[in-house]
Amino acid sequence: MDFRKFSNNYVVRIDKGEEIISSIKELCLKEEIKTGSISGIGACDLIEIGLFNVKTKEYKTEVFKGMFEITSLTGNITRKDGEVYIHLHVNFSDETNTVRGGHFVKADVSAACEVIINKIEGAVDREFNQEIGLNLLKF
Amino acid sequence: MDFRKFSNNYVVRIDKGEEIISSIKELCLKEEIKTGSISGIGACDLIEIGLFNVKTKEYKTEVFKGMFEITSLTGNITRKDGEVYIHLHVNFSDETNTVRGGHFVKADVSAACEVIINKIEGAVDREFNQEIGLNLLKF
Amino acid sequence: MDFRKFSNNYVVRIDKGEEIISSIKELCLKEEIKTGSISGIGACDLIEIGLFNVKTKEYKTEVFKGMFEITSLTGNITRKDGEVYIHLHVNFSDETNTVRGGHFVKADVSAACEVIINKIEGAVDREFNQEIGLNLLKF
Repeated sequence: MDFRKFSNNYVVRIDKGEEIISSIKELCLKEEIKTGSISGIGACDLIEIGLFNVKTKEYKTEVFKGMFEITSLTGNITRKDGEVYIHLHVNFSDETNTVRGGHFVKADVSAACEVIINKIEGAVDREFNQEIGLNLLKF
Repeated sequence: MDFRKFSNNYVVRIDKGEEIISSIKELCLKEEIKTGSISGIGACDLIEIGLFNVKTKEYKTEVFKGMFEITSLTGNITRKDGEVYIHLHVNFSDETNTVRGGHFVKADVSAACEVIINKIEGAVDREFNQEIGLNLLKF
Repeated sequence: MDFRKFSNNYVVRIDKGEEIISSIKELCLKEEIKTGSISGIGACDLIEIGLFNVKTKEYKTEVFKGMFEITSLTGNITRKDGEVYIHLHVNFSDETNTVRGGHFVKADVSAACEVIINKIEGAVDREFNQEIGLNLLKF
């Protein structure tokens, strides 16, 4: 992973074999990014996604292996209990151009992943909401 | 719906049971956002999308009910006849991780929806274009 | 194609019959945009997308014709050998609301396409990487 910072924008390259979520976390720690928006594209050969079941309040996750294009990676950076918290959803296509997607758990880069992070000056926390079963934005 | 503003960025939380388009409109009115970009993710249990038929110049809309992840919500804020005009397209996944999408009409949040709005200082209007059959950006 | 610039943001309208990649390139040349992020939605009647095969190091491309909504267009602007380099991935839906996607090669607008470009002050180059077979971000 390598990046360049220009004003509040980070142009980020995540390399073959690297995992996307941990790479973004590493950047956030290094650059002290507390709040931000994330937008990315890339290619991966392993991806784990989830669907939140509002009844059981649990994520049902699934792992896919193959040749995939990440057609969009969208989400935000906040904090929970003082730790970096990355929340992303993803769309990805396979060799038939079919798109699958969901809550983004993790993915291993197969060729390259390019992410733009817009650092937002300010702090937003999260708090677990018992009723919903998720860590919601706390203002 | 609740939010925090940092410089030109709004970090927005739309809550369970709230409708997404009307929540964003409410924010735009409250904060006098005339122009902006929208990027969001979330979960919903009812979603209405459309496909614009260029021949009939009408939207064919469809409503889906179930457990969905909004994998990307992308678009912009402008004005038409002095009113807030939200133009969004959406991708959403179901329990089989299949992604559907189209022109975004509306959606009811089932767990949470997180949106980042970048307010653009300036005004962009729309005007109905007879030939196309849509309200196009007018510069 | 027409646009308005507000601070570092470009609100762009690409018109019926125009091709998206060449329109964005034209804007970048005109406005000397060297680095930036791109986010867009629209409708098209011809679209060419690709999947990068990491083994053969070649893109397998496919052309689709029909009535499509571009549900998300995501990527970045950089430079390679002094030339504008647009890297975008796309998701698009058809009349059954099914979403396909991949590396974005080109698309002809059928009704309208609306793009927001965030110009980043700074320069990022690309360099061909023999091992990967792609033009990667070079910092």
